[in-house]
Amino acid sequence: MSTTAITPTRAVDFPEWYQQVVRAADLAENSEVRGCMVIKPWGCGLWENIQRTLDVKFKATGHQNAYFPLLIPLSYLEKESQHAEGFATECAVVTHHRLESVKQPDGKIKLVPTGELAEPFVIRPTSETIIGAAFARWVESYRDLPLLINQWCNVMRWEMRPRLFLRTAEFLWQEGHTAHETAGEAMEEARLMHRVYEEFLRNHLAIPVIAGEKTERERFPGALNSFTVEAMVQDRKAIQAGTSHFLGQNFSKAANIEFLGRDNQRHLAWTTSWGVSTRLIGTLIMAHGDDDGVILPPRIAPTQIVILPVTPKPDTRAAVIDACEAFAQTLRAHSYQDRPLAVHVDKRDIPGGTRNWEWIKKGVPLRVEIGPRDIGIRSVAVARRDRGPKEKEFIGKEEFIRNVPDILDDIQNALLERATKLRDENTKRLDTEAEFRAFFADELPGGFALMHWAGSSADEERLQKELKITIRCVPHGDEYAEEGKCFITGKPSTRRVVFARSY
Amino acid sequence: MSTTAITPTRAVDFPEWYQQVVRAADLAENSEVRGCMVIKPWGCGLWENIQRTLDVKFKATGHQNAYFPLLIPLSYLEKESQHAEGFATECAVVTHHRLESVKQPDGKIKLVPTGELAEPFVIRPTSETIIGAAFARWVESYRDLPLLINQWCNVMRWEMRPRLFLRTAEFLWQEGHTAHETAGEAMEEARLMHRVYEEFLRNHLAIPVIAGEKTERERFPGALNSFTVEAMVQDRKAIQAGTSHFLGQNFSKAANIEFLGRDNQRHLAWTTSWGVSTRLIGTLIMAHGDDDGVILPPRIAPTQIVILPVTPKPDTRAAVIDACEAFAQTLRAHSYQDRPLAVHVDKRDIPGGTRNWEWIKKGVPLRVEIGPRDIGIRSVAVARRDRGPKEKEFIGKEEFIRNVPDILDDIQNALLERATKLRDENTKRLDTEAEFRAFFADELPGGFALMHWAGSSADEERLQKELKITIRCVPHGDEYAEEGKCFITGKPSTRRVVFARSY
Repeated sequence: MSTTAITPTRAVDFPEWYQQVVRAADLAENSEVRGCMVIKPWGCGLWENIQRTLDVKFKATGHQNAYFPLLIPLSYLEKESQHAEGFATECAVVTHHRLESVKQPDGKIKLVPTGELAEPFVIRPTSETIIGAAFARWVESYRDLPLLINQWCNVMRWEMRPRLFLRTAEFLWQEGHTAHETAGEAMEEARLMHRVYEEFLRNHLAIPVIAGEKTERERFPGALNSFTVEAMVQDRKAIQAGTSHFLGQNFSKAANIEFLGRDNQRHLAWTTSWGVSTRLIGTLIMAHGDDDGVILPPRIAPTQIVILPVTPKPDTRAAVIDACEAFAQTLRAHSYQDRPLAVHVDKRDIPGGTRNWEWIKKGVPLRVEIGPRDIGIRSVAVARRDRGPKEKEFIGKEEFIRNVPDILDDIQNALLERATKLRDENTKRLDTEAEFRAFFADELPGGFALMHWAGSSADEERLQKELKITIRCVPHGDEYAEEGKCFITGKPSTRRVVFARSY
Repeated sequence: MSTTAITPTRAVDFPEWYQQVVRAADLAENSEVRGCMVIKPWGCGLWENIQRTLDVKFKATGHQNAYFPLLIPLSYLEKESQHAEGFATECAVVTHHRLESVKQPDGKIKLVPTGELAEPFVIRPTSETIIGAAFARWVESYRDLPLLINQWCNVMRWEMRPRLFLRTAEFLWQEGHTAHETAGEAMEEARLMHRVYEEFLRNHLAIPVIAGEKTERERFPGALNSFTVEAMVQDRKAIQAGTSHFLGQNFSKAANIEFLGRDNQRHLAWTTSWGVSTRLIGTLIMAHGDDDGVILPPRIAPTQIVILPVTPKPDTRAAVIDACEAFAQTLRAHSYQDRPLAVHVDKRDIPGGTRNWEWIKKGVPLRVEIGPRDIGIRSVAVARRDRGPKEKEFIGKEEFIRNVPDILDDIQNALLERATKLRDENTKRLDTEAEFRAFFADELPGGFALMHWAGSSADEERLQKELKITIRCVPHGDEYAEEGKCFITGKPSTRRVVFARSY
């Protein structure tokens, strides 16, 4: 059975392991449209749960959903030059609005673009500019503020080196956009959503992130400050899992979001934007997966329990399947985290080992086997995905039903603990450039290096070019505040920053 | 107060009334991107409820969600020529994947498309071709069938005469795509989803549709049969509210969706597709709205009950708002249609009349006023949106809480009855061309004409060109089956068809 685990293992080739895990779990696949993926039902189910959970948090913090045009006129982008330059190299451009169908000699047709547009459009790489134009229409007085909007949509950034979920030309995401009366309120909003992301990753995805600010060089194009949550995955690299930006008045100036203030004068609004994407799914896989496949945290798994009927003989098959369906129904009447338990009965008539391994690879938290003998004795064989593939425990049905929420919480906590241990063991406080270089030497796994820093953007660029290492964030939190000297410039520093290789 | 109702009324200018109602209810607005709308929070909330309700029905009938690329290579479209010709004139074409940023003398930047693509892409107008390509990869044997997939996404069809919700260049929709082993199974699937739409429109949107089949001329490009649900709205025109297509083997041939059958031979799969869009919101408004604004069926309203604090004096304001919040909390602990009641307290400090009219225009089913005197006597003033704007009833709080589900059902039923009455009163069985022409004479409202029909596509085209009247469907249902003679050709006919003007 070990031959059905993932090849290669994580230790042998982590990037290739990732590709294989995504395939084995049937989460997504590449399409023939360069850089664009097909998100398959299991991946879509994960995204739906992420979306549903975050949407509740967004609404609880006062936001409403709206939907804005996919296409952005070039003139909108041109208004904020930093922003335009930041995204120009990866924009898909719409230049025509018709096709002419030309009959070929062989009877087939050929389609040729026609109806050239006076002004081309880009497919949104992000929506600050087009939402800014709407906000300018909607805001008249301070009474219309704050404006707290979120959009769930697809965006497109042409990628030269795509990787499923982590970096794709088209991806799904949410983008929050808000406008405020004062700089302070906008900053508080950006920080609030930063905390929402940090909490969501920890409590739902079981990923302990480091929360902090980007350096000027790494900021969102056009932002005055970018807050980020950085996850460490199992090859010790960082993944930027979510960002929240304080945009100052840059975009309100570009789009002319003006309001009549309490002082009866006209003012520019202060805006924010914040987003997470299907990249979270890649982060989840890289954070928790093992050499057998994906491991999904119970709070986000599309299916929490899969029931596998064990049907060695045709004459008991119907009775076993009935028992499985009845058990599933009972379980579905119970809740976990305020939702009915998500239970699936896999009735496919394929070899039990194959079927079991499929669900291991998909990362379902609990697998429950019910065979002919279990019907009478009212017990079930339960296997937890966070333990070995052969470990199973026989539990009385009643007891199992009673304990399911605790077992799922236990798995959720075990994943968070494991990920926290990985992160903490691979985060080092280093003081010299020599230590820094040794930590990131090619034969070593690396990790997060906590360094004193007072360098310039040019210094950052040099480290990136030579070593492919960047400042992931200037972390918040008292544990990073201490007096010291920058390991490159020797200038005084009051806080350590996080350096890492990243996706 | 009557001055705050919608101008013009429905009777005076229905199309203009529609534009004004959409604006007054704050559902959506035009953007500067031609034909693309901004869906505002109230419209988005409606779409979210439509989506959530349908998604449950799709999953209950065995479908799973997936997500496919936004961009479609031209070569995919070219494979099915009828389909390609059907959509060619309305495709947005992506021809470049970069922008070059050129600094202007004034310091501003100008963006110029660059990075021309070897093969252009269109933004999906619908996804048969790209999903077909995925299905071809996924299907190997009859054991992989049926494949039952749905996608929630945006699509784009360049529109020359856009109208909010009803006809926009970009719209949101769901598109189901399924592949089957036999023609019979695919046909059964297309019919099943047709029934799901019919039921959803009746039971959730309170719209009684006529369900039937399109004539060959009106079919989806590439389909062998198109099932439709046709709604009558208040100007007596028809709106095609949802369609379900039996595609035969046309698309599986184009995309090569082949499987190894039970007979060990290779076969082409039989496919279907089916969809509804944000057009449903336009249909809803035109079906139920009155001269005061939108009227939303309780089962789909983003807010079912709005609580309006009546605060004539500053010293009782806090107590009244507390009482409103407490009442809202109590109501939210109760369910309607398996979801917590959606209750909003409007605490804005604006004139009571203005606030009340805003909610009337938005179409919230129930408005509840609580003032200082109501706190003591524990009663509330309740206004139903399906009755006059000044009608209100004083009900004890306990009684109201107990009766809310019944009151909401009563409103839901009243809307369905009203819409059914409108449809039935304006549906006529006519027998001659003279009667037909009189029915659709310009000074009359028209409606649905049930006619015997045995004409050709050319006959249909002639009627459309001259009178702008089309066959909306060949309706299912015994009540339409009867012997007769085609009113144009005189040929024998066994069933009446529905003729109407349409959106």
